[in-house]
Amino acid sequence: MAKIKIPVSSNVKFNDNWKRCVGTGRMGLALQKEYLDSLSIVQENIGFDYIRGHGLLTDDVGIYREKHGIGPVCNFTYLDRIFDSFLSHKIKPFVELGFMPNQLASGTQTVFYWKGNITPPKDYALWRNLIKTLFKHLISRYGIEEVRKWPVEVWNEPDLPIFWQNGDQQEYFKLYRETAAAIKETDSGILVGGPATCPGAIHWIPVFLEMCDNTKTPVDFVSQHSYCGKTPEKGPEIVYQELLPNDHLLSQFKQSREHIINSAYPDTLPLHITEFNSSYIPKCPVHDTAFNAAFLGKVLAFGSDYADSFSYWTFSDVFEEDDVPQSQFHGGFGLVALNGIVKPTFHLFAFFAKLGDELLYRDNDMIVTRRNDGAIVIVAWNPVTEKDDNFKCNFDLEIPYGCSECVIKQQIVDEENGNAWNAWRTIGRPRYPDKQQIQTLKQAAVPAIAIKRQRIENGIAELKFSLNKNGVCLIEISELRDQTNTYPGLDDSKITGY
Amino acid sequence: MAKIKIPVSSNVKFNDNWKRCVGTGRMGLALQKEYLDSLSIVQENIGFDYIRGHGLLTDDVGIYREKHGIGPVCNFTYLDRIFDSFLSHKIKPFVELGFMPNQLASGTQTVFYWKGNITPPKDYALWRNLIKTLFKHLISRYGIEEVRKWPVEVWNEPDLPIFWQNGDQQEYFKLYRETAAAIKETDSGILVGGPATCPGAIHWIPVFLEMCDNTKTPVDFVSQHSYCGKTPEKGPEIVYQELLPNDHLLSQFKQSREHIINSAYPDTLPLHITEFNSSYIPKCPVHDTAFNAAFLGKVLAFGSDYADSFSYWTFSDVFEEDDVPQSQFHGGFGLVALNGIVKPTFHLFAFFAKLGDELLYRDNDMIVTRRNDGAIVIVAWNPVTEKDDNFKCNFDLEIPYGCSECVIKQQIVDEENGNAWNAWRTIGRPRYPDKQQIQTLKQAAVPAIAIKRQRIENGIAELKFSLNKNGVCLIEISELRDQTNTYPGLDDSKITGY
Amino acid sequence: MAKIKIPVSSNVKFNDNWKRCVGTGRMGLALQKEYLDSLSIVQENIGFDYIRGHGLLTDDVGIYREKHGIGPVCNFTYLDRIFDSFLSHKIKPFVELGFMPNQLASGTQTVFYWKGNITPPKDYALWRNLIKTLFKHLISRYGIEEVRKWPVEVWNEPDLPIFWQNGDQQEYFKLYRETAAAIKETDSGILVGGPATCPGAIHWIPVFLEMCDNTKTPVDFVSQHSYCGKTPEKGPEIVYQELLPNDHLLSQFKQSREHIINSAYPDTLPLHITEFNSSYIPKCPVHDTAFNAAFLGKVLAFGSDYADSFSYWTFSDVFEEDDVPQSQFHGGFGLVALNGIVKPTFHLFAFFAKLGDELLYRDNDMIVTRRNDGAIVIVAWNPVTEKDDNFKCNFDLEIPYGCSECVIKQQIVDEENGNAWNAWRTIGRPRYPDKQQIQTLKQAAVPAIAIKRQRIENGIAELKFSLNKNGVCLIEISELRDQTNTYPGLDDSKITGY
Amino acid sequence: MAKIKIPVSSNVKFNDNWKRCVGTGRMGLALQKEYLDSLSIVQENIGFDYIRGHGLLTDDVGIYREKHGIGPVCNFTYLDRIFDSFLSHKIKPFVELGFMPNQLASGTQTVFYWKGNITPPKDYALWRNLIKTLFKHLISRYGIEEVRKWPVEVWNEPDLPIFWQNGDQQEYFKLYRETAAAIKETDSGILVGGPATCPGAIHWIPVFLEMCDNTKTPVDFVSQHSYCGKTPEKGPEIVYQELLPNDHLLSQFKQSREHIINSAYPDTLPLHITEFNSSYIPKCPVHDTAFNAAFLGKVLAFGSDYADSFSYWTFSDVFEEDDVPQSQFHGGFGLVALNGIVKPTFHLFAFFAKLGDELLYRDNDMIVTRRNDGAIVIVAWNPVTEKDDNFKCNFDLEIPYGCSECVIKQQIVDEENGNAWNAWRTIGRPRYPDKQQIQTLKQAAVPAIAIKRQRIENGIAELKFSLNKNGVCLIEISELRDQTNTYPGLDDSKITGY
Repeated sequence: MAKIKIPVSSNVKFNDNWKRCVGTGRMGLALQKEYLDSLSIVQENIGFDYIRGHGLLTDDVGIYREKHGIGPVCNFTYLDRIFDSFLSHKIKPFVELGFMPNQLASGTQTVFYWKGNITPPKDYALWRNLIKTLFKHLISRYGIEEVRKWPVEVWNEPDLPIFWQNGDQQEYFKLYRETAAAIKETDSGILVGGPATCPGAIHWIPVFLEMCDNTKTPVDFVSQHSYCGKTPEKGPEIVYQELLPNDHLLSQFKQSREHIINSAYPDTLPLHITEFNSSYIPKCPVHDTAFNAAFLGKVLAFGSDYADSFSYWTFSDVFEEDDVPQSQFHGGFGLVALNGIVKPTFHLFAFFAKLGDELLYRDNDMIVTRRNDGAIVIVAWNPVTEKDDNFKCNFDLEIPYGCSECVIKQQIVDEENGNAWNAWRTIGRPRYPDKQQIQTLKQAAVPAIAIKRQRIENGIAELKFSLNKNGVCLIEISELRDQTNTYPGLDDSKITGY
Repeated sequence: MAKIKIPVSSNVKFNDNWKRCVGTGRMGLALQKEYLDSLSIVQENIGFDYIRGHGLLTDDVGIYREKHGIGPVCNFTYLDRIFDSFLSHKIKPFVELGFMPNQLASGTQTVFYWKGNITPPKDYALWRNLIKTLFKHLISRYGIEEVRKWPVEVWNEPDLPIFWQNGDQQEYFKLYRETAAAIKETDSGILVGGPATCPGAIHWIPVFLEMCDNTKTPVDFVSQHSYCGKTPEKGPEIVYQELLPNDHLLSQFKQSREHIINSAYPDTLPLHITEFNSSYIPKCPVHDTAFNAAFLGKVLAFGSDYADSFSYWTFSDVFEEDDVPQSQFHGGFGLVALNGIVKPTFHLFAFFAKLGDELLYRDNDMIVTRRNDGAIVIVAWNPVTEKDDNFKCNFDLEIPYGCSECVIKQQIVDEENGNAWNAWRTIGRPRYPDKQQIQTLKQAAVPAIAIKRQRIENGIAELKFSLNKNGVCLIEISELRDQTNTYPGLDDSKITGY
Repeated sequence: MAKIKIPVSSNVKFNDNWKRCVGTGRMGLALQKEYLDSLSIVQENIGFDYIRGHGLLTDDVGIYREKHGIGPVCNFTYLDRIFDSFLSHKIKPFVELGFMPNQLASGTQTVFYWKGNITPPKDYALWRNLIKTLFKHLISRYGIEEVRKWPVEVWNEPDLPIFWQNGDQQEYFKLYRETAAAIKETDSGILVGGPATCPGAIHWIPVFLEMCDNTKTPVDFVSQHSYCGKTPEKGPEIVYQELLPNDHLLSQFKQSREHIINSAYPDTLPLHITEFNSSYIPKCPVHDTAFNAAFLGKVLAFGSDYADSFSYWTFSDVFEEDDVPQSQFHGGFGLVALNGIVKPTFHLFAFFAKLGDELLYRDNDMIVTRRNDGAIVIVAWNPVTEKDDNFKCNFDLEIPYGCSECVIKQQIVDEENGNAWNAWRTIGRPRYPDKQQIQTLKQAAVPAIAIKRQRIENGIAELKFSLNKNGVCLIEISELRDQTNTYPGLDDSKITGY
Repeated sequence: MAKIKIPVSSNVKFNDNWKRCVGTGRMGLALQKEYLDSLSIVQENIGFDYIRGHGLLTDDVGIYREKHGIGPVCNFTYLDRIFDSFLSHKIKPFVELGFMPNQLASGTQTVFYWKGNITPPKDYALWRNLIKTLFKHLISRYGIEEVRKWPVEVWNEPDLPIFWQNGDQQEYFKLYRETAAAIKETDSGILVGGPATCPGAIHWIPVFLEMCDNTKTPVDFVSQHSYCGKTPEKGPEIVYQELLPNDHLLSQFKQSREHIINSAYPDTLPLHITEFNSSYIPKCPVHDTAFNAAFLGKVLAFGSDYADSFSYWTFSDVFEEDDVPQSQFHGGFGLVALNGIVKPTFHLFAFFAKLGDELLYRDNDMIVTRRNDGAIVIVAWNPVTEKDDNFKCNFDLEIPYGCSECVIKQQIVDEENGNAWNAWRTIGRPRYPDKQQIQTLKQAAVPAIAIKRQRIENGIAELKFSLNKNGVCLIEISELRDQTNTYPGLDDSKITGY
């Protein structure tokens, strides 16, 4: 293959919008210890800014109740506990308003195992009141400065009849207008947006923006979802779903942005991809694989060109859309599997978190940056859809680097390394692993590491490496500062055996 | 090589006397946070029963003071803090009495950077009083049942003039008699022993036992040290020391035991090897290497045949005999290096901690056991003194195992794996690594792991593997309990990329 | 008042059966972080042996599912997480089997906000199969020795139509027989019992035992509940309930025991009061008060005379029978209120946990014991049902104590001390207290402490003290060991200001 | 007494310069776990910005060594560990350069039990080299921005012959010039100052500044110490020292400031009182008392008028100037006693940390502020030097407050409350308390708390309270926001017993 010559420097900033937000299972799960333990792992190693999920207004969070003889009352015991937890983990809520409290609903249709009511409010005045009471409480507890940093998204995928009765666009627009008005009456500085549509309904965006413009309805951002699964095939326990190429995700981002550009609103109206992943199925085994990590490398590298945030759906397998998880691995969306075991895609994100913000080079297979500490940091990936295992990807780079010798640290995830799912298959797919098995899976989840020195000739570091099938790697190149001879006379050959 | 046939079962118990005790830097260091952090790492992964080190009576622990106008007083502020810490880490003190408090000393000669006074007491009545006051305090604080479990060793290596003025045997015997009497007067159930001699003075043992017998002096155990370094070669910062073969250590254990057998005392008088290691030099780089781990494999496997305990010197590089440590790695004795980075020899001990107590087989290169949970657990090692790197050791075993398929988990430490010292050399031997470098070294210190399945034909698992130069590995073989088909229809080939 | 003369010693052991077990909200809540934080507080300060609550088989724990085309399957993901958590907090499950999984139910009637299905199984063969699968799993995960220590209670309060369809006794007996058979088929050593009846249905016990005897159905213990509330009065948010005297609780214990004595079973058949409290209403403010603590003092002191365990209902306000808690204090059953704030009754239990097991004296107002460390330890209480605040209770004791001077440490809870509920009323009953308010409530929840010395004349310590209305106190009397003059010359009067 | 009318508002900022810095025992102690545990307590409850102590260059920290055949080398293993610990506790080093490394010293005279060498360098070129090597290392590890925030003080109390050979002023000035030059050569932005003189040598300040001015020697701040003990009286274990009035401390601050004002330097040259306390004796029991807390109230309230920082000597009894601490309480300087038990003076500082920065009123007995959250926050104190216990101090304030009812939270420390030392005397002054005794002392160390409501008439809160002898209290007044009637009908009188 041809050598790639990396430039000495660049004026282009690499935007880490992939880090802005991450998805979560229903809000009620944020009360659970394992959920918060997973969140700690993610925040320590990746550090997202916002978290977004469904079910804030669903009955288990307990916010809305109509009391006999008193009328509607709000209860913020669990809400406060959840948001307090988020903030203590240095992550802010990206507030999704939904689903409908049963007592406020106009119907009984629900979504998911946990029965989120997806019908419009029985009375929009009561709904507005709920929204105002909710935000007044948030402002009183967290302060107006803080709450103004939390984008508020109205509902989730209203284009789908399973999420919004009949997928009724006009009714959604009404909900949006009522909600936006209630929010802005509470405080005009709180950010509100929509339409939170699924990939098949990008065409809602221009209609939505036109409606906002025509009706002078406030809109502070546009939100959209992005997946690339083909028709799913249901098994008795899990669901298989073949994938379209990863460029489909980026073209969805791009198309959403173009709708903004072509609207009455400024180009700079923020676009939040409030959900993305490969498959949209919560029980699709691809999520557990190294392929998934390699497949999303390009998306993380290029997504910021179009979106102000794009939120991986989701950070943890503590998740219940379909049912309680039935096995250690079960095709869940999470970056972190049950029992705190990290997946290959977790490492992709953790690797990206090591990149610098000077963008030196990127292509379909890798991204090369310089970090503030001077290190050249590279992430590369090799997703292989062919069943054959012999699809190595070779890299050959010339990197200008101003020192005589450097240290190259490489961390690798592929089918054999940093891959707990593969180890789990080998040890017999235990549904409820015991302590020893959990220990084994945690050990298997650690990426391989290789550290070497390399001489730099003529100011150029020659870097050749290859990735196995479905491999992802992080390479950090830094100047060698050799302290071997700070005293005279170290000689390892005098050590027995060396 | 010839196949080794492992028997189906065995009546021989594998004694883990290697786990009874571990050495430590001077007692005063046990006040330090990093010392206790290292101890936590060791106790979680290995779990020693006792800890032994010098300097309990040295001035920095503050026990003995002569006050003007009052006379001798004892102060147990630090002693209590130290012993409380030990017990909270589930490790008991193996009490070494020494060195001499300055105000109680007959001379000014000291040992080590921290100036332990190594002269006899100026007044044996004051010494006896100190010992009684000390043990009365210990009994009052910890209870008599507990204190009776703590062996008490009189002094350290009195045969060496650097540790005991003139290496005066008669004076040591006097010290021993006075001390033993003082202890037994306090409580006859407390265990006392000696002579704590260095490898070159095993011949003290019979003389010591004869003295005890002749003078009716109590003796509850014999203690002895064991090292196998040749003449050291001093460098400006570290000291090189070639090693005799590891059998020298075992033959020292054996010889010590034979002295007991040939004495007036029963064969069962406990023998405690209260120190052992390869080199006895606190700045000898061999301690940091994979060679050291491989070299000691046989000693851990066979040492219990002779000794009731043998105590690796020491658990941590938080240690100061020669001076404050001057570099991340510096040839210290510790299982754990500075900054909580574990060494190859740490893994040897952690691997042995996974063995079962049914001893199926052992030879120069490996040990094979069955654990209570049914697993066959093997540790193997391959120390190579030749400089050449091509000294693989191949293993070929037939292991009877009663199931149709098994899971084999292998963890490997060698020059390239689980070897922070080697990584440290590569990155330029930073004396005071920064956070990123510490992270790199911790990653490099993790053993390689490989997990695979294997069919068992005719009740026999065929196990072939090889060890690289200076490799040590742990192999755990357990029955495969495959849950893949607890539901019908799992088919990984339907996952994109598989 | 008359002086009470405490005897020098006693052969009577004080049984701490009050410590055997504690109640909990539905099992699904045990996944929550705040639940486990409360459990840590309780276990550190009190240390119960067992924990019992409803809802193990209810759908949110996810154990039982009927899958289309596969049939019934069991899922133990959450069960394992819950029981693992219990054991890591050193508390064992007292297993209550209930309520009915929806897909296994014969009807749709539910109890509580969280909709526990209270109808008999649609098919007893499926039910037996569920029970066997469940216990096989528990044995495989936790070991047979451990599981045999977990009593298994069949259902909850089947005499009440809200808990068991129609309160149908014959159907319950059938359920019991089928369940007991399924358990014993799994392992005959697992303990099974019933009928878990409410206070008004003690008469079920003899009928239940007769049924067991007649049908040769295994029964390893009898269980019964105990409360003493009068007819409740519903308010819009909370429910008031006047109480019968606390002797009613003890007479319920006694009556249950007499039913065993009069049965075909041995006197020693264990009696477990698997729930008790003052009021049985989950929103009755008495639970938050000092009165509740004082009221239960006598019950803890005498309950062990009749019951092998009696389980306070419940350890924490993380509880949801009626709804999500709507306020910091809301009349919940918990020993620990929301945000980790302990209630007066928590202190009663923590005080009892300090008692010794030599019972020197007890009456309606206090209990006097000697602890192993020699201390005389007293708990006293003064529940006052009158509204008037001037109902002090005075105590005057003569306690033989073999030293010349003692230290008396007294800790007090009453309306003004150790009383977070009262402080909460003062600061305006904040529903969702902020950090500062939580801090204030935690400070207010600490008992008052007084420490003094007292001379002992003629071997008798005279102890006079009084308790305010609704006071509870712990008094620990220990020998003074004065070290003031271990050196000569301490003179506080030389300190400026002293 | 006359009523004090507090103004509605004020433009005066209350400077919390008392919080800028705190003293510590020798740097080597910062390696100890108990030291760091105490530091955690202090930082969580008070939150100092800087920490200053002796012994950075003393041999136990291990920085300077002369190696045979190599020459001087520096070792930063412990230095890094210590400074890393400080920064992780959110406290920065206020670097004191001293004492002399033994191998660099011109003499053998030492100070303290831990033998700090107090002689000038044998060679100023070597000294300058040491200083440069040290700061180059600090800059490389912590970054230049960070190091420029760390003031560097040259030596400690050079006016005293016990701290600086002969108290030789000219030699100190030389040391200062050499050191300042070395520092500024390393980086001109690093702040350097002196003369760190003891209270009796304030007259050094003008001479020092004149010398700097004349010789163009850089000086970025002036440092001075402040104590107010009279002639000490030595006991066999502790030392008594009567105190001058606390105004002496303030007048020392003021006098130091005046020396700056009258110098060639701007008025704004920072003045750092790098040590202050009542008694300067490390074994003077006054430090453990409530008197000490009350005595220093005025100093904390007024000290910022003169000093840019004033550093309480010291934060913890983990301290060794005289010897290893010999008893739980022993008159140590610490805010925190051994075993994490806080002293009354700790509470004074924690109370001051609750004050706001709007200064409404202050006098000899109290300070009144408004906090950002609107609360009126008061600290009051009542030091009584008379032996008589009947010296109450009464307070009567009129505080304008804009609401109809307020909550008043008062926390009190005096002889009976928040006073572990007094409890320790009562229980017999145990030198090495056991776990139960430590628990008792921790309970006794908690301040009393009282919470009440008060009506506000005509916009004025009338506040009357009194302080017992040696009392200190914190009063926080905040608006009552009563949520009792957010639902209709709460009636506590319906609760049994209320």
